[in-house]
Amino acid sequence: MIKVAVLGATGYTALEAIKILLRHPEVTIVAATSRQEGSTPVSSVHPSLVGRIDLPLEDLSPEEVGSRADCVFGCLPHCASAEILPKVLEAGAKVVDFSADYRLDDAASYLEWYGHEHPDQPRLGATVYGLPELFREHIREARLVANPGCYATSAILPLAPLVKSGLVETDDIIIDSKSGVSGAGRQPKLMTHFPECNESMSAYNVGRHRHTPEIEQIVNRHAGIRPSVIFTPQLAPMDRGILSTIYVKPKQTINEADVMSLLREAYAGERFVRVVDHLPGTKDTVDTNFCDITARVVRGRILLISCLDNLVKGAAGAAVQNFNVLYSLPETAGLL
Amino acid sequence: MIKVAVLGATGYTALEAIKILLRHPEVTIVAATSRQEGSTPVSSVHPSLVGRIDLPLEDLSPEEVGSRADCVFGCLPHCASAEILPKVLEAGAKVVDFSADYRLDDAASYLEWYGHEHPDQPRLGATVYGLPELFREHIREARLVANPGCYATSAILPLAPLVKSGLVETDDIIIDSKSGVSGAGRQPKLMTHFPECNESMSAYNVGRHRHTPEIEQIVNRHAGIRPSVIFTPQLAPMDRGILSTIYVKPKQTINEADVMSLLREAYAGERFVRVVDHLPGTKDTVDTNFCDITARVVRGRILLISCLDNLVKGAAGAAVQNFNVLYSLPETAGLL
Amino acid sequence: MIKVAVLGATGYTALEAIKILLRHPEVTIVAATSRQEGSTPVSSVHPSLVGRIDLPLEDLSPEEVGSRADCVFGCLPHCASAEILPKVLEAGAKVVDFSADYRLDDAASYLEWYGHEHPDQPRLGATVYGLPELFREHIREARLVANPGCYATSAILPLAPLVKSGLVETDDIIIDSKSGVSGAGRQPKLMTHFPECNESMSAYNVGRHRHTPEIEQIVNRHAGIRPSVIFTPQLAPMDRGILSTIYVKPKQTINEADVMSLLREAYAGERFVRVVDHLPGTKDTVDTNFCDITARVVRGRILLISCLDNLVKGAAGAAVQNFNVLYSLPETAGLL
Amino acid sequence: MIKVAVLGATGYTALEAIKILLRHPEVTIVAATSRQEGSTPVSSVHPSLVGRIDLPLEDLSPEEVGSRADCVFGCLPHCASAEILPKVLEAGAKVVDFSADYRLDDAASYLEWYGHEHPDQPRLGATVYGLPELFREHIREARLVANPGCYATSAILPLAPLVKSGLVETDDIIIDSKSGVSGAGRQPKLMTHFPECNESMSAYNVGRHRHTPEIEQIVNRHAGIRPSVIFTPQLAPMDRGILSTIYVKPKQTINEADVMSLLREAYAGERFVRVVDHLPGTKDTVDTNFCDITARVVRGRILLISCLDNLVKGAAGAAVQNFNVLYSLPETAGLL
Repeated sequence: MIKVAVLGATGYTALEAIKILLRHPEVTIVAATSRQEGSTPVSSVHPSLVGRIDLPLEDLSPEEVGSRADCVFGCLPHCASAEILPKVLEAGAKVVDFSADYRLDDAASYLEWYGHEHPDQPRLGATVYGLPELFREHIREARLVANPGCYATSAILPLAPLVKSGLVETDDIIIDSKSGVSGAGRQPKLMTHFPECNESMSAYNVGRHRHTPEIEQIVNRHAGIRPSVIFTPQLAPMDRGILSTIYVKPKQTINEADVMSLLREAYAGERFVRVVDHLPGTKDTVDTNFCDITARVVRGRILLISCLDNLVKGAAGAAVQNFNVLYSLPETAGLL
Repeated sequence: MIKVAVLGATGYTALEAIKILLRHPEVTIVAATSRQEGSTPVSSVHPSLVGRIDLPLEDLSPEEVGSRADCVFGCLPHCASAEILPKVLEAGAKVVDFSADYRLDDAASYLEWYGHEHPDQPRLGATVYGLPELFREHIREARLVANPGCYATSAILPLAPLVKSGLVETDDIIIDSKSGVSGAGRQPKLMTHFPECNESMSAYNVGRHRHTPEIEQIVNRHAGIRPSVIFTPQLAPMDRGILSTIYVKPKQTINEADVMSLLREAYAGERFVRVVDHLPGTKDTVDTNFCDITARVVRGRILLISCLDNLVKGAAGAAVQNFNVLYSLPETAGLL
Repeated sequence: MIKVAVLGATGYTALEAIKILLRHPEVTIVAATSRQEGSTPVSSVHPSLVGRIDLPLEDLSPEEVGSRADCVFGCLPHCASAEILPKVLEAGAKVVDFSADYRLDDAASYLEWYGHEHPDQPRLGATVYGLPELFREHIREARLVANPGCYATSAILPLAPLVKSGLVETDDIIIDSKSGVSGAGRQPKLMTHFPECNESMSAYNVGRHRHTPEIEQIVNRHAGIRPSVIFTPQLAPMDRGILSTIYVKPKQTINEADVMSLLREAYAGERFVRVVDHLPGTKDTVDTNFCDITARVVRGRILLISCLDNLVKGAAGAAVQNFNVLYSLPETAGLL
Repeated sequence: MIKVAVLGATGYTALEAIKILLRHPEVTIVAATSRQEGSTPVSSVHPSLVGRIDLPLEDLSPEEVGSRADCVFGCLPHCASAEILPKVLEAGAKVVDFSADYRLDDAASYLEWYGHEHPDQPRLGATVYGLPELFREHIREARLVANPGCYATSAILPLAPLVKSGLVETDDIIIDSKSGVSGAGRQPKLMTHFPECNESMSAYNVGRHRHTPEIEQIVNRHAGIRPSVIFTPQLAPMDRGILSTIYVKPKQTINEADVMSLLREAYAGERFVRVVDHLPGTKDTVDTNFCDITARVVRGRILLISCLDNLVKGAAGAAVQNFNVLYSLPETAGLL
């Protein structure tokens, strides 16, 4: 059994990771850490785990975590993550980092979008991005994986093959995304207070959401062409799920069947990307590690529609998928 | 035009009061106060009011509020309310108090259930309870009205006539209530964080919710018999609405038609209590000042089912109804 | 008092119209019709109306309706509408038609998008479109008003001034809209069955929603330039509200302040269009006749964000606003 | 591998069963039947299953199903179930029946509550009720198991040990239950149309819900005392989950700790009943096979609060648990 620790275990992505790992045939969870909640049972913070996990929340040092576990799932806030995870790596563990800290190409972009000097710059451009569908071979050899952002995954998976194909304009891409509220985390605030966001739809962080450079840089890593995207995140009154509607201009007239073929070929053999004919709803993917994608051509423009569960394929499920690649396990272990 | 001020204008009941008052033909809103948000427009806190009210939030003294307005709607937290409102009254204004401070009979009960010495004990047992359906004549002559609690209204309206009739056991009453989340106020906390309470039902404050003594004492004021109730509040994943299912044991066999007649007679001529044959849903009353009530007899036990909008008939609508009584206006003014 | 009849009174837009009309100082509702539900009280179908309206549903002929009422609100399905309303007009009443039947310019478009020969072609291009903000003078003189579609209003209001300004490309407009479920009507079907659409977001009718030509033709009527739009309707898990995010390419570099100025000027003096600085949420407009609009410029592209309540400004509120114009009443009567 | 067929595979409980069975290490799904949808893929009706199951919906005879499968999950409507399942049993398969047809003791009760002559009366009183926590030994030897009703499970589990203890009055039990909408099935109707039931709470079938006799008879089978219960089902605006608040009168004064001990002892060693100290919410159990139970004593009355997922522990999860008992597999197989 592979020993896994969850660092920062009080949030929603950590809870989701624990639930998946409990079902994983090759994993034992050996630690769950928290600075604030130290020494209470994990299930006192997450009552859905009562009777399913018998671990306390512990306030452990990175060194302790890294030596107790074979692999560490880092569920820490950005910036904190890149300060702590290097010590976990040094202590010998492999790491899947749920934060944004190792996703971007360079410290300048990180500073621009996150407002901080990156604390571990050498690893920044050198860390693999944890989308096995695009970077499986690099993940296999990695010791640190940057787990993708939820919005980013919903955009990159449909966009990457199109950009790579050379058939579309790369400076005229609009990504209109709608997310469930769990994506905003477990910290109460007015925006996610039930009577504020229930029965409402609204846009936020227009033009300045941090997944914008992530989408552009990662598509570039895959396709060798850096697109420029307009990304609009919007909050929908539901727990989970992201629906991304993406508008792409083809260089020349293209028909729907050709776009669908291109997507099907790109993801042939991929277990967790479902290229479907119908218009998928987020509910089709909730509680699963699937990303559903379809395409339409409307008045000459390509529409890509994708959906996924932001806590699973958008976070914890992707992390377990990366873990499976890291340890040469069947990629679906724990995930079906 | 009657000049009305809203004290503590950032919460949901204050917002609802403002919306109703804007529609009231005899009212001008002359002030909206807030300690924290002073000097920004009301609509900066409540964006639904943009273009509908042109007032700043002000940090006014009770004396200023009481002299600027004819009538003050107090939307302050309990305890704070009974400290500030006496000064407003002294400055000459009439007051409708949304807090619980003047609802109970005595300081001992207040201390027991609210954990504080009451700061204005002489007015405590002497203040009228603002349910016009039961205490209209007293309200007419009052200068201070204790606006009822939302759960309390949903329980007292169906219970009061039955207890008064002498036909039911008064020590075997179970009130099982379900409320929308706006009842918990506008302050973000984990319990009302969207991903926590959405798609969930749960009980809270079992056996110790503060509306328990309120229900008992007010039914007693009306019926002359103090009942003993078990009251279970529960949170439902919706913005507004309270559904109360009340189980009452008749002293002798009673049939449904007789219970319905008793309710219809009790509320004949009342505009805001609708005794209905069908099983009402909270949605029938949302955004209205109605309380819908029906009764069933199941295996010899009386079931009373009531519903209302916790922010309207359970708070701001009731306050305007009380205001109308205070000023001898048509009781429905602003409310239909 | 002006006598109003509601034709096809069992649906949601009819219910909303009745609620608003009950509050209107110059209106008496004189009839509410239904083919299926004839002779039961209106409130037996709409329990929220118990005690508020004392009319039966009647199965009346168009002639009877047209002679009994001064003004008729037609809430019939498309095609049925254009068969029945001509008779209502002949009987002497004015008409506000909630259906799509008189919105388009020509019979060919109607046939293409609605799949039927239009039954009343002479009136088709000759009927005013009921957006007072754009066509007030024509509405004033009309006897028949085509009440706008909900999505269409959310798109036309922000787009019309920009297209008219000549500053934007008119063949590169993307309208990504999200609607609450009441927009789909009161007839149960799988798509709107609670466990199907709750907690889900999905697109539908991509590339073939009937509001597409409506948006294009009406912007053209106002601006004299016919735009070509890509319109994507999406279902959000909420009762009411439409959020439209619209992407428009300026011909030349433009800044946010200029777009905002253009919008503010276009709607200066308009009571029901609020051009706001913040990012509005649909909840800000729910249960009101307001349409909130803002603009951003992101990477050179203009984003217009609008929201409104599909049953109010998107249907019944707009109808009452049109009614007020038709009868030279204050345009806000019944609507604030 | 054990071959399982799902009879009536288009509904929500069938879908849930398929999802659990796909994860079950000892099961192959060999058939999924439907009369209406014959010959389309299962995933065309349930898009969440795309890529997870490669079976068509088939219109098979009971004999075909019974010979193709070792065990059949019957997800048919009541009455239809007892007509078809005898033939499945004769063909050699074991059966877990999701319908209510084999739950009650006698044909007279069935006729009274379901309005039909029972088509297979000899098996009616002789069939084991599929709550392993109470009837595990009988299930082990059965060929036909009557899978429990969702409300019934939420009531029987907390009530059974209390009634058996002899400490409580058995003719003064009130069960106030709130259920998510999926409990009403997949057939669209007005009551479950999103704009009707969203943002609303309402009671239905008061005094005549069919789980009433089921609760009474099954508690009697376990405890040897037949209680008389008042059961009030209520619809809550959420997909899944039942919260039951149960009011029981002790014969003599009892304290909370004693009630909790009694519950803990009753379910010591039971993997799927969690007796918890905190007040559980339905969300703690959603997507799990757990039933969470706690107790409080309020003014001398015992409150039992239970929650579970109506589609899992209330239907498909319980069925798999029964299946595991039938085949002497670990009871948690596929369920954690």
